[in-house]
Amino acid sequence: MSTERTEISTLGEFGLIEHLTKNIELQNASSVLGVGDDAAVIDHFGKQTVITTDLLVEGVHFDLLYTPLRHLGYKSVIVNLSDIYAMNATPTQITLSIGISNRFSVEALDEFYEGVYAACDKYAVDLVGGDTTSSQKGLIISVTAIGEVTPDKYVKRSTAQKGDLLCVSGYLGAAYVGLLFLEREKKIYIESPGVQPDLEGESYVIGRMLKPEARKDIIDFFAASDVVPTAMMDISDGLSSEILHICRQSQLGCILYEEKIPIAEEMKKAAFKFEIDPTACALSGGEDYELIFTIPQSEYDKLVLNEEISVVGYMTGPEEGVYIITKGGGKHAITAQGWNHLAQ
Amino acid sequence: MSTERTEISTLGEFGLIEHLTKNIELQNASSVLGVGDDAAVIDHFGKQTVITTDLLVEGVHFDLLYTPLRHLGYKSVIVNLSDIYAMNATPTQITLSIGISNRFSVEALDEFYEGVYAACDKYAVDLVGGDTTSSQKGLIISVTAIGEVTPDKYVKRSTAQKGDLLCVSGYLGAAYVGLLFLEREKKIYIESPGVQPDLEGESYVIGRMLKPEARKDIIDFFAASDVVPTAMMDISDGLSSEILHICRQSQLGCILYEEKIPIAEEMKKAAFKFEIDPTACALSGGEDYELIFTIPQSEYDKLVLNEEISVVGYMTGPEEGVYIITKGGGKHAITAQGWNHLAQ
Repeated sequence: MSTERTEISTLGEFGLIEHLTKNIELQNASSVLGVGDDAAVIDHFGKQTVITTDLLVEGVHFDLLYTPLRHLGYKSVIVNLSDIYAMNATPTQITLSIGISNRFSVEALDEFYEGVYAACDKYAVDLVGGDTTSSQKGLIISVTAIGEVTPDKYVKRSTAQKGDLLCVSGYLGAAYVGLLFLEREKKIYIESPGVQPDLEGESYVIGRMLKPEARKDIIDFFAASDVVPTAMMDISDGLSSEILHICRQSQLGCILYEEKIPIAEEMKKAAFKFEIDPTACALSGGEDYELIFTIPQSEYDKLVLNEEISVVGYMTGPEEGVYIITKGGGKHAITAQGWNHLAQ
Repeated sequence: MSTERTEISTLGEFGLIEHLTKNIELQNASSVLGVGDDAAVIDHFGKQTVITTDLLVEGVHFDLLYTPLRHLGYKSVIVNLSDIYAMNATPTQITLSIGISNRFSVEALDEFYEGVYAACDKYAVDLVGGDTTSSQKGLIISVTAIGEVTPDKYVKRSTAQKGDLLCVSGYLGAAYVGLLFLEREKKIYIESPGVQPDLEGESYVIGRMLKPEARKDIIDFFAASDVVPTAMMDISDGLSSEILHICRQSQLGCILYEEKIPIAEEMKKAAFKFEIDPTACALSGGEDYELIFTIPQSEYDKLVLNEEISVVGYMTGPEEGVYIITKGGGKHAITAQGWNHLAQ
């Protein structure tokens, strides 16, 4: 990172936009017109358009004390792409608006956009528009993502069927444990600024928090295997919260098996350092950006081939409720303990 | 307005979203799936998709001391629709994200959304998604609008031709004068809270500031008259700034005639109360949300029929520069004095 500091005011709003977007190369044939006009034009050929948006506010969704701007830019894109994949769609474009206070330099913004463009490159998505303005306090980020899906192949939350298998991708709960480490080190840093952060050996959980990925591979696998989930969403608020969404919107109950919840060894060790239960992290921790979905039992043979997918339970009738069977054999109702920014 | 106050925390995030969106009725056949899932699905039949986004921050873009929340909701939508019309496209969907601090009640949010839905109704646009979160300070609004345009009928800023007529819709500069009144009354109110605001007789200019409309009628007129402008954009930062955009992006010069700039009588009187030049308000004031566009001289006969359109000048070669001919016959270079939030 350069130590230069160029004040944003030296560029002006339009100069800043030009500065930040001059290296964009559009990747999709459908990106007919990108940044630089009132709106972006996207062409579709018999495809359906999928659109999602997220608003990220400093001090609410991220803490710049321990979040490198490059990672923040990357993650701001990823969380939206994850929503597009959760529809069984392929993201094609994003728009990005940011509100910034004058404490940010052009170099700082460059770092942020480096992360944005890295995510766009990796997922073959075009940044096609946005808005750049000032904020009175803190950094504000709004991303909208647009995707394509073959007509009627999109997957909602409300269409799970009784008897379906409940599945998740990857490993759960690690991002939350990563956050605990970062918050701990922040507290130590504030109390004793001279002390170096001790994040040794925790790169897995911290990486899951600061630099998540979206599960494009799972969507590609569905297409290649001719699988269409009956219901799907991404796991951003914790497994409990998402299971309750699918059950409520599909008007079903469900049984979840604790022993089937995929938990990485590194996360388990890290959670024990905080003397917290890894299962609780998976159930109530947020920001995993894995996928949760349901498939008919008849499709099970196709999923077995994919090590990134775990069957964690099955859907029941609504009268049977939403339960977890613990490793000890206990049966407990699942309650929502996902992140709730508004309750803070 | 009700005097009840329901704390947002009593609803929770999802309860709040449900509360705010439960009355949505989708208007467009293309709105296949709206609020309530990870993303919205939009179907298009051989149309191109147009998308634009704006981020509005309290204290930067609006002042709640004199902006009724209902008007703010309305305007937040309008400014984005205006960008879609400026592409010669028809808006079909919006997404809306808001960040709110706990000083807002559910009733206050209801008022805001009433305005949002009023704009959606009037312009036949569907709200299909969004995000609701907390902010540490102030209200944050991010709107993304999506529109359709017949393939290759969209109009950019960069395609004006030498010799084209330069045209604008409606009347310019009034929103800025309205803002001056509101800021004056705010100052008086802060100094002497007992004094009633004196906005008598200024409903035109204040209405232009607080409750602008988007020029759907102009786009409809183009379609009915078989006119496609060579270049177009909306006037949000002032006439000077937008003319410079079109000239720079089209690599042309231009002559603007002061006497042709459309200025409403009510605005002229109001400007004189502040002892400012109405022309300066039109050139440098923002937030008019009128359209500026260029057409070949051969299309002039078609425009004459529309009283809402004024020819204000013509495009020249780039070597001839960008000038205004004043009423006194003077010739002055046009410089950008539009609103620049980042320079504040």
